[in-house]
Amino acid sequence: MTVPNHEDYDPGCISLVPIFSDLSLQEMGEVAAITQERHVSKGETVYFAGRTEKQLFVIHQGRVKISRISESGKVQVIRVLGPGDFMGELSVLHDMPRTDFAEALQDCTMCVIPGEALKTLMQRFPSIALKALEELSTRVEQLQTRLEQNQHSSPEYRIARAILDLSGGSSTVTLPMTKGDLASQLGMTQETLSRKLSSLQEAGLINQPSPGVIRIIDRSGLEAVI
Amino acid sequence: MTVPNHEDYDPGCISLVPIFSDLSLQEMGEVAAITQERHVSKGETVYFAGRTEKQLFVIHQGRVKISRISESGKVQVIRVLGPGDFMGELSVLHDMPRTDFAEALQDCTMCVIPGEALKTLMQRFPSIALKALEELSTRVEQLQTRLEQNQHSSPEYRIARAILDLSGGSSTVTLPMTKGDLASQLGMTQETLSRKLSSLQEAGLINQPSPGVIRIIDRSGLEAVI
Repeated sequence: MTVPNHEDYDPGCISLVPIFSDLSLQEMGEVAAITQERHVSKGETVYFAGRTEKQLFVIHQGRVKISRISESGKVQVIRVLGPGDFMGELSVLHDMPRTDFAEALQDCTMCVIPGEALKTLMQRFPSIALKALEELSTRVEQLQTRLEQNQHSSPEYRIARAILDLSGGSSTVTLPMTKGDLASQLGMTQETLSRKLSSLQEAGLINQPSPGVIRIIDRSGLEAVI
Repeated sequence: MTVPNHEDYDPGCISLVPIFSDLSLQEMGEVAAITQERHVSKGETVYFAGRTEKQLFVIHQGRVKISRISESGKVQVIRVLGPGDFMGELSVLHDMPRTDFAEALQDCTMCVIPGEALKTLMQRFPSIALKALEELSTRVEQLQTRLEQNQHSSPEYRIARAILDLSGGSSTVTLPMTKGDLASQLGMTQETLSRKLSSLQEAGLINQPSPGVIRIIDRSGLEAVI
Protein backbone atom coordinates (compact mmCIF):
# COMPACT_ATOMS: atom_id res chain seq x y z
CA MET A 1 0.00 0.00 0.00
CA THR A 2 1.25 3.47 -0.77
CA VAL A 3 1.11 5.75 2.20
CA PRO A 4 0.41 9.37 1.25
CA ASN A 5 3.07 11.73 2.56
CA HIS A 6 2.18 14.97 4.25
CA GLU A 7 2.21 16.94 1.02
CA ASP A 8 -0.32 14.70 -0.70
CA TYR A 9 -3.36 15.03 1.51
CA ASP A 10 -5.31 17.31 3.77
CA PRO A 11 -5.88 15.44 7.04
CA GLY A 12 -8.97 17.63 7.56
CA CYS A 13 -10.90 16.69 10.66
CA ILE A 14 -8.47 13.88 11.48
CA SER A 15 -5.91 16.38 12.71
CA LEU A 16 -8.45 18.01 15.03
CA VAL A 17 -9.66 14.88 16.74
CA PRO A 18 -8.20 14.10 20.19
CA ILE A 19 -8.18 10.33 19.65
CA PHE A 20 -5.80 10.83 16.69
CA SER A 21 -3.67 13.57 18.27
CA ASP A 22 -0.73 11.30 19.11
CA LEU A 23 -0.28 10.16 15.51
CA SER A 24 2.46 11.43 13.23
CA LEU A 25 1.47 13.35 10.08
CA GLN A 26 2.16 10.26 8.01
CA GLU A 27 0.02 8.09 10.28
CA MET A 28 -2.78 10.68 10.09
CA GLY A 29 -2.54 10.30 6.35
CA GLU A 30 -3.30 6.60 6.72
CA VAL A 31 -6.36 7.38 8.82
CA ALA A 32 -7.46 10.06 6.36
CA ALA A 33 -7.19 7.52 3.54
CA ILE A 34 -9.99 5.38 5.03
CA THR A 35 -12.10 8.29 6.22
CA GLN A 36 -14.96 9.91 4.35
CA GLU A 37 -15.99 13.47 4.97
CA ARG A 38 -19.71 14.03 5.35
CA HIS A 39 -21.76 17.21 5.50
CA VAL A 40 -25.03 17.21 7.41
CA SER A 41 -27.39 20.15 7.36
CA LYS A 42 -28.99 21.62 10.45
CA GLY A 43 -32.00 19.52 11.47
CA GLU A 44 -30.92 16.48 9.48
CA THR A 45 -30.60 13.08 11.16
CA VAL A 46 -27.08 11.61 11.17
CA TYR A 47 -28.26 8.12 12.14
CA PHE A 48 -31.29 6.39 13.63
CA ALA A 49 -31.70 3.89 16.47
CA GLY A 50 -31.97 0.34 15.18
CA ARG A 51 -29.48 0.80 12.36
CA THR A 52 -26.67 -1.74 12.24
CA GLU A 53 -24.07 -0.03 10.05
CA LYS A 54 -20.72 0.03 11.86
CA GLN A 55 -19.28 3.52 11.62
CA LEU A 56 -17.63 5.92 13.98
CA PHE A 57 -18.54 9.57 13.45
CA VAL A 58 -16.16 12.28 14.58
CA ILE A 59 -17.41 15.86 14.51
CA HIS A 60 -15.22 18.38 12.76
CA GLN A 61 -17.54 21.39 12.74
CA GLY A 62 -20.97 21.97 14.25
CA ARG A 63 -23.03 20.43 17.04
CA VAL A 64 -24.96 17.17 17.18
CA LYS A 65 -27.66 16.14 19.65
CA ILE A 66 -27.80 12.51 20.79
CA SER A 67 -31.19 11.27 22.01
CA ARG A 68 -32.90 8.05 22.93
CA ILE A 69 -36.52 7.08 22.87
CA SER A 70 -37.55 5.23 26.02
CA GLU A 71 -39.83 2.19 25.95
CA SER A 72 -42.66 4.46 27.02
CA GLY A 73 -42.02 6.61 23.95
CA LYS A 74 -40.46 9.62 25.64
CA VAL A 75 -37.51 11.29 23.98
CA GLN A 76 -34.54 11.97 26.22
CA VAL A 77 -31.54 14.07 25.24
CA ILE A 78 -28.38 12.29 26.31
CA ARG A 79 -25.61 14.59 25.16
CA VAL A 80 -24.79 17.47 22.87
CA LEU A 81 -21.51 16.91 21.01
CA GLY A 82 -19.16 19.43 19.45
CA PRO A 83 -15.93 19.47 17.42
CA GLY A 84 -13.56 16.62 18.33
CA ASP A 85 -16.27 14.48 19.97
CA PHE A 86 -17.12 11.07 18.55
CA MET A 87 -20.28 8.97 18.47
CA GLY A 88 -21.35 5.52 17.35
CA GLU A 89 -18.58 3.62 19.15
CA LEU A 90 -21.01 1.00 20.48
CA SER A 91 -21.87 -0.20 16.99
CA VAL A 92 -18.17 -0.48 16.18
CA LEU A 93 -17.03 -2.24 19.35
CA HIS A 94 -20.04 -4.54 19.71
CA ASP A 95 -22.26 -6.18 17.18
CA MET A 96 -25.21 -4.13 18.31
CA PRO A 97 -27.70 -1.97 16.48
CA ARG A 98 -27.56 1.70 17.44
CA THR A 99 -29.57 2.52 20.57
CA ASP A 100 -29.73 6.25 20.05
CA PHE A 101 -30.29 8.73 17.29
CA ALA A 102 -28.24 11.74 16.28
CA GLU A 103 -29.51 15.01 14.86
CA ALA A 104 -27.47 17.98 13.60
CA LEU A 105 -28.20 21.13 15.66
CA GLN A 106 -26.13 23.19 13.19
CA ASP A 107 -24.68 22.59 9.75
CA CYS A 108 -22.00 20.00 10.45
CA THR A 109 -18.91 18.49 8.89
CA MET A 110 -17.86 15.10 10.20
CA CYS A 111 -15.42 12.28 9.49
CA VAL A 112 -16.98 8.85 8.98
CA ILE A 113 -14.65 5.92 9.71
CA PRO A 114 -15.74 2.35 8.86
CA GLY A 115 -15.77 0.16 12.00
CA GLU A 116 -13.56 -2.69 10.84
CA ALA A 117 -10.95 -0.33 9.45
CA LEU A 118 -10.95 1.57 12.74
CA LYS A 119 -10.35 -1.62 14.72
CA THR A 120 -7.44 -2.50 12.44
CA LEU A 121 -6.02 1.00 12.95
CA MET A 122 -6.29 0.62 16.73
CA GLN A 123 -4.31 -2.61 16.51
CA ARG A 124 -1.59 -0.80 14.52
CA PHE A 125 -1.65 2.43 16.50
CA PRO A 126 -2.60 1.60 20.10
CA SER A 127 -2.45 5.29 21.03
CA ILE A 128 -5.82 5.68 19.25
CA ALA A 129 -7.35 3.03 21.50
CA LEU A 130 -5.79 4.58 24.60
CA LYS A 131 -7.18 8.02 23.76
CA ALA A 132 -10.61 6.52 23.12
CA LEU A 133 -10.35 4.75 26.49
CA GLU A 134 -9.63 8.08 28.19
CA GLU A 135 -12.65 9.61 26.50
CA LEU A 136 -14.98 6.74 27.44
CA SER A 137 -13.76 6.62 31.04
CA THR A 138 -14.51 10.34 31.30
CA ARG A 139 -17.97 9.69 29.92
CA VAL A 140 -18.56 6.92 32.48
CA GLU A 141 -17.55 9.34 35.24
CA GLN A 142 -19.85 12.09 33.94
CA LEU A 143 -22.79 9.70 33.63
CA GLN A 144 -22.29 8.43 37.18
CA THR A 145 -22.24 12.00 38.43
CA ARG A 146 -25.44 12.83 36.55
CA LEU A 147 -27.12 9.70 37.86
CA GLU A 148 -26.17 10.59 41.40
CA GLN A 149 -27.29 14.20 40.99
CA ASN A 150 -30.60 13.22 39.46
CA GLN A 151 -31.35 10.73 42.19
CA HIS A 152 -30.37 12.79 45.17
CA SER A 153 -30.85 16.38 44.29
CA SER A 154 -33.44 19.02 43.70
CA PRO A 155 -34.16 20.60 40.30
CA GLU A 156 -32.51 23.83 41.59
CA TYR A 157 -29.32 21.91 42.33
CA ARG A 158 -29.26 20.30 38.90
CA ILE A 159 -29.90 23.60 37.11
CA ALA A 160 -27.29 25.53 39.10
CA ARG A 161 -24.79 22.73 38.49
CA ALA A 162 -25.52 22.71 34.76
CA ILE A 163 -25.12 26.50 34.46
CA LEU A 164 -21.80 26.41 36.31
CA ASP A 165 -20.58 23.45 34.25
CA LEU A 166 -21.56 25.11 30.97
CA SER A 167 -20.02 28.44 31.98
CA GLY A 168 -16.47 27.08 32.08
CA GLY A 169 -15.57 29.95 34.41
CA SER A 170 -17.02 32.71 32.21
CA SER A 171 -19.96 34.85 33.32
CA THR A 172 -22.04 34.43 30.18
CA VAL A 173 -23.43 31.06 29.15
CA THR A 174 -24.79 30.53 25.67
CA LEU A 175 -26.84 27.36 25.85
CA PRO A 176 -25.59 24.81 23.30
CA MET A 177 -29.13 23.40 22.98
CA THR A 178 -32.75 24.46 23.34
CA LYS A 179 -34.29 24.87 26.77
CA GLY A 180 -36.46 21.85 26.04
CA ASP A 181 -33.40 19.75 25.36
CA LEU A 182 -31.64 21.04 28.46
CA ALA A 183 -34.71 20.19 30.56
CA SER A 184 -34.76 16.71 29.08
CA GLN A 185 -31.09 16.20 29.81
CA LEU A 186 -31.63 17.35 33.40
CA GLY A 187 -34.63 15.04 33.85
CA MET A 188 -37.34 17.66 34.30
CA THR A 189 -40.06 19.32 32.26
CA GLN A 190 -39.41 22.54 30.38
CA GLU A 191 -41.97 24.27 32.60
CA THR A 192 -40.02 23.31 35.72
CA LEU A 193 -36.79 24.53 34.15
CA SER A 194 -38.30 27.90 33.20
CA ARG A 195 -39.91 28.34 36.63
CA LYS A 196 -36.67 27.54 38.46
CA LEU A 197 -34.62 29.82 36.19
CA SER A 198 -37.05 32.63 37.03
CA SER A 199 -36.57 31.90 40.74
CA LEU A 200 -32.79 32.03 40.38
CA GLN A 201 -33.19 35.32 38.52
CA GLU A 202 -35.48 36.76 41.22
CA ALA A 203 -32.90 35.72 43.81
CA GLY A 204 -30.35 37.87 41.93
CA LEU A 205 -28.11 34.94 41.02
CA ILE A 206 -28.55 35.03 37.24
CA ASN A 207 -30.34 36.94 34.55
CA GLN A 208 -31.45 36.00 31.05
CA PRO A 209 -30.62 38.85 28.67
CA SER A 210 -31.83 37.01 25.56
CA PRO A 211 -33.21 33.58 24.63
CA GLY A 212 -30.59 30.90 25.13
CA VAL A 213 -28.27 33.17 27.08
CA ILE A 214 -27.78 33.08 30.84
CA ARG A 215 -25.58 35.57 32.66
CA ILE A 216 -24.17 34.64 36.04
CA ILE A 217 -24.63 37.64 38.35
CA ASP A 218 -23.59 36.07 41.65
CA ARG A 219 -21.32 33.08 41.11
CA SER A 220 -20.73 32.33 44.78
CA GLY A 221 -24.48 32.56 45.41
CA LEU A 222 -25.05 30.08 42.60
CA GLU A 223 -22.36 27.80 43.96
CA ALA A 224 -24.08 27.90 47.32
CA VAL A 225 -27.16 26.31 45.70
CA ILE A 226 -25.20 23.17 44.90
CA MET B 1 14.06 -9.23 29.97
CA THR B 2 13.40 -12.93 30.36
CA VAL B 3 9.85 -13.83 29.57
CA PRO B 4 8.58 -16.72 31.67
CA ASN B 5 7.28 -19.55 29.54
CA HIS B 6 4.00 -21.27 30.25
CA GLU B 7 5.56 -23.87 32.51
CA ASP B 8 7.14 -21.31 34.82
CA TYR B 9 4.18 -19.40 36.14
CA ASP B 10 0.56 -19.59 37.14
CA PRO B 11 -1.28 -16.80 35.32
CA GLY B 12 -3.89 -16.91 38.12
CA CYS B 13 -6.57 -14.31 37.71
CA ILE B 14 -4.98 -12.95 34.52
CA SER B 15 -6.26 -15.94 32.56
CA LEU B 16 -9.80 -15.34 33.79
CA VAL B 17 -10.03 -11.68 32.89
CA PRO B 18 -11.85 -10.75 29.67
CA ILE B 19 -9.54 -7.85 28.83
CA PHE B 20 -6.61 -10.28 28.68
CA SER B 21 -8.45 -13.12 26.96
CA ASP B 22 -6.94 -12.50 23.50
CA LEU B 23 -3.37 -12.83 24.75
CA SER B 24 -1.23 -15.90 24.17
CA LEU B 25 -0.07 -17.89 27.20
CA GLN B 26 3.35 -16.31 26.91
CA GLU B 27 1.89 -12.80 26.75
CA MET B 28 -0.27 -13.57 29.80
CA GLY B 29 2.99 -14.48 31.51
CA GLU B 30 4.24 -10.97 30.87
CA VAL B 31 1.12 -9.48 32.37
CA ALA B 32 1.32 -11.84 35.36
CA ALA B 33 4.91 -10.72 35.93
CA ILE B 34 3.82 -7.15 36.71
CA THR B 35 0.67 -8.12 38.59
CA GLN B 36 0.30 -8.54 42.32
CA GLU B 37 -2.34 -10.75 43.84
CA ARG B 38 -4.21 -9.22 46.73
CA HIS B 39 -6.65 -10.75 49.19
CA VAL B 40 -9.32 -8.57 50.74
CA SER B 41 -11.59 -9.82 53.49
CA LYS B 42 -15.35 -9.31 53.54
CA GLY B 43 -16.16 -5.80 54.75
CA GLU B 44 -12.69 -4.45 54.08
CA THR B 45 -12.20 -1.34 51.92
CA VAL B 46 -10.22 -1.89 48.71
CA TYR B 47 -9.68 1.83 48.10
CA PHE B 48 -11.07 5.18 49.18
CA ALA B 49 -12.20 8.26 47.25
CA GLY B 50 -9.50 10.92 47.09
CA ARG B 51 -6.61 8.46 46.81
CA THR B 52 -4.27 9.09 43.92
CA GLU B 53 -2.47 5.77 43.54
CA LYS B 54 -2.73 4.57 39.93
CA GLN B 55 -3.77 0.94 39.94
CA LEU B 56 -6.24 -1.17 38.07
CA PHE B 57 -7.98 -3.84 40.14
CA VAL B 58 -9.36 -6.92 38.45
CA ILE B 59 -11.55 -9.23 40.50
CA HIS B 60 -10.66 -12.89 40.45
CA GLN B 61 -12.97 -14.19 43.17
CA GLY B 62 -15.68 -12.51 45.23
CA ARG B 63 -17.82 -9.41 44.91
CA VAL B 64 -17.00 -5.74 45.40
CA LYS B 65 -19.38 -2.85 45.92
CA ILE B 66 -18.52 0.52 44.34
CA SER B 67 -20.08 3.57 45.99
CA ARG B 68 -19.81 7.31 45.90
CA ILE B 69 -20.57 9.90 48.53
CA SER B 70 -22.49 12.84 47.10
CA GLU B 71 -21.70 16.42 48.04
CA SER B 72 -24.67 16.32 50.37
CA GLY B 73 -23.11 13.35 52.16
CA LYS B 74 -25.40 10.61 50.88
CA VAL B 75 -23.89 7.28 49.92
CA GLN B 76 -24.95 5.88 46.57
CA VAL B 77 -24.14 2.41 45.35
CA ILE B 78 -22.97 2.58 41.75
CA ARG B 79 -22.23 -1.00 40.86
CA VAL B 80 -21.57 -4.42 42.29
CA LEU B 81 -18.67 -6.14 40.54
CA GLY B 82 -17.87 -9.84 40.25
CA PRO B 83 -15.11 -12.05 38.83
CA GLY B 84 -13.57 -10.66 35.63
CA ASP B 85 -14.76 -7.10 36.26
CA PHE B 86 -12.24 -4.29 36.70
CA MET B 87 -12.25 -1.02 38.61
CA GLY B 88 -10.02 2.00 39.07
CA GLU B 89 -9.50 2.70 35.36
CA LEU B 90 -10.12 6.44 35.77
CA SER B 91 -7.06 6.82 38.02
CA VAL B 92 -4.97 4.96 35.45
CA LEU B 93 -6.19 6.75 32.32
CA HIS B 94 -6.39 10.22 33.82
CA ASP B 95 -4.34 11.94 36.47
CA MET B 96 -7.33 12.07 38.77
CA PRO B 97 -7.86 11.02 42.36
CA ARG B 98 -10.40 8.26 42.80
CA THR B 99 -13.99 9.50 42.94
CA ASP B 100 -15.50 6.36 44.43
CA PHE B 101 -14.75 3.82 47.09
CA ALA B 102 -14.75 0.06 46.90
CA GLU B 103 -15.71 -2.40 49.63
CA ALA B 104 -15.48 -6.19 49.55
CA LEU B 105 -18.91 -7.78 49.95
CA GLN B 106 -17.28 -11.22 50.24
CA ASP B 107 -13.73 -12.46 50.78
CA CYS B 108 -12.04 -11.49 47.52
CA THR B 109 -8.96 -12.24 45.49
CA MET B 110 -7.94 -9.64 42.96
CA CYS B 111 -5.10 -8.75 40.61
CA VAL B 112 -3.53 -5.34 41.10
CA ILE B 113 -1.81 -3.89 38.03
CA PRO B 114 0.26 -0.68 38.29
CA GLY B 115 -1.14 2.02 36.02
CA GLU B 116 1.98 2.93 34.04
CA ALA B 117 2.83 -0.71 33.43
CA LEU B 118 -0.72 -1.29 32.20
CA LYS B 119 -0.46 1.58 29.72
CA THR B 120 2.81 0.19 28.41
CA LEU B 121 1.17 -3.23 28.02
CA MET B 122 -1.71 -1.69 26.09
CA GLN B 123 0.79 -0.11 23.70
CA ARG B 124 2.42 -3.50 23.16
CA PHE B 125 -0.78 -5.54 23.07
CA PRO B 126 -3.54 -3.35 21.62
CA SER B 127 -6.06 -6.17 22.09
CA ILE B 128 -6.05 -5.33 25.83
CA ALA B 129 -7.06 -1.74 25.05
CA LEU B 130 -9.72 -2.90 22.58
CA LYS B 131 -11.28 -5.26 25.14
CA ALA B 132 -11.24 -2.50 27.76
CA LEU B 133 -12.93 -0.21 25.21
CA GLU B 134 -15.67 -2.78 24.69
CA GLU B 135 -16.19 -3.03 28.44
CA LEU B 136 -16.31 0.75 28.93
CA SER B 137 -18.66 1.28 25.99
CA THR B 138 -20.99 -1.31 27.52
CA ARG B 139 -20.83 0.54 30.81
CA VAL B 140 -21.67 3.85 29.09
CA GLU B 141 -24.68 2.17 27.51
CA GLN B 142 -25.87 0.69 30.82
CA LEU B 143 -25.48 4.01 32.63
CA GLN B 144 -27.46 5.83 29.93
CA THR B 145 -30.22 3.25 30.26
CA ARG B 146 -30.30 3.62 34.04
CA LEU B 147 -30.35 7.40 33.75
CA GLU B 148 -33.26 7.23 31.36
CA GLN B 149 -35.15 4.72 33.49
CA ASN B 150 -34.63 6.72 36.68
CA GLN B 151 -35.80 9.93 35.09
CA HIS B 152 -38.84 8.62 33.34
CA SER B 153 -40.13 5.68 35.27
CA SER B 154 -41.88 4.70 38.44
CA PRO B 155 -40.25 2.81 41.31
CA GLU B 156 -42.32 -0.27 40.31
CA TYR B 157 -40.84 -0.14 36.83
CA ARG B 158 -37.30 0.13 38.11
CA ILE B 159 -37.78 -2.73 40.59
CA ALA B 160 -39.43 -5.04 38.04
CA ARG B 161 -36.68 -4.23 35.55
CA ALA B 162 -33.96 -4.94 38.14
CA ILE B 163 -35.51 -8.30 39.13
CA LEU B 164 -35.81 -9.38 35.50
CA ASP B 165 -32.24 -8.23 34.72
CA LEU B 166 -30.82 -10.02 37.77
CA SER B 167 -32.78 -13.21 37.03
CA GLY B 168 -30.95 -13.87 33.76
CA GLY B 169 -33.95 -15.98 32.68
CA SER B 170 -34.08 -18.11 35.83
CA SER B 171 -37.05 -18.02 38.21
CA THR B 172 -35.06 -17.54 41.39
CA VAL B 173 -33.01 -14.40 42.01
CA THR B 174 -30.46 -14.29 44.79
CA LEU B 175 -29.69 -10.62 45.33
CA PRO B 176 -25.96 -9.94 44.93
CA MET B 177 -26.21 -7.09 47.48
CA THR B 178 -28.28 -6.03 50.46
CA LYS B 179 -31.75 -4.55 49.99
CA GLY B 180 -30.39 -1.22 51.19
CA ASP B 181 -27.73 -1.27 48.47
CA LEU B 182 -30.25 -2.31 45.82
CA ALA B 183 -32.54 0.54 46.87
CA SER B 184 -29.63 2.98 46.65
CA GLN B 185 -28.68 1.74 43.21
CA LEU B 186 -32.29 2.12 42.06
CA GLY B 187 -32.52 5.63 43.48
CA MET B 188 -35.14 5.01 46.18
CA THR B 189 -35.29 4.47 49.92
CA GLN B 190 -35.18 0.98 51.38
CA GLU B 191 -38.71 1.53 52.75
CA THR B 192 -40.03 2.24 49.24
CA LEU B 193 -38.26 -0.84 47.90
CA SER B 194 -39.74 -3.07 50.64
CA ARG B 195 -43.23 -1.64 50.19
CA LYS B 196 -43.16 -2.08 46.41
CA LEU B 197 -41.80 -5.63 46.71
CA SER B 198 -44.72 -6.42 49.03
CA SER B 199 -47.13 -4.99 46.46
CA LEU B 200 -45.61 -7.13 43.71
CA GLN B 201 -45.93 -10.15 46.02
CA GLU B 202 -49.59 -9.34 46.84
CA ALA B 203 -50.22 -9.06 43.10
CA GLY B 204 -48.96 -12.64 42.75
CA LEU B 205 -45.99 -11.69 40.56
CA ILE B 206 -43.18 -12.63 42.95
CA ASN B 207 -42.61 -14.07 46.38
CA GLN B 208 -39.75 -13.75 48.83
CA PRO B 209 -39.02 -17.20 50.32
CA SER B 210 -36.05 -15.99 52.38
CA PRO B 211 -34.06 -12.78 52.92
CA GLY B 212 -32.20 -11.79 49.78
CA VAL B 213 -34.10 -14.25 47.58
CA ILE B 214 -36.88 -13.32 45.17
CA ARG B 215 -38.82 -15.93 43.23
CA ILE B 216 -40.54 -14.90 40.02
CA ILE B 217 -44.05 -16.42 40.07
CA ASP B 218 -45.52 -14.72 37.02
CA ARG B 219 -42.80 -13.61 34.59
CA SER B 220 -45.12 -12.23 31.95
CA GLY B 221 -47.02 -10.32 34.63
CA LEU B 222 -43.75 -8.85 35.83
CA GLU B 223 -42.76 -7.99 32.29
CA ALA B 224 -46.06 -6.18 31.88
CA VAL B 225 -45.03 -3.80 34.68
CA ILE B 226 -42.13 -2.50 32.61
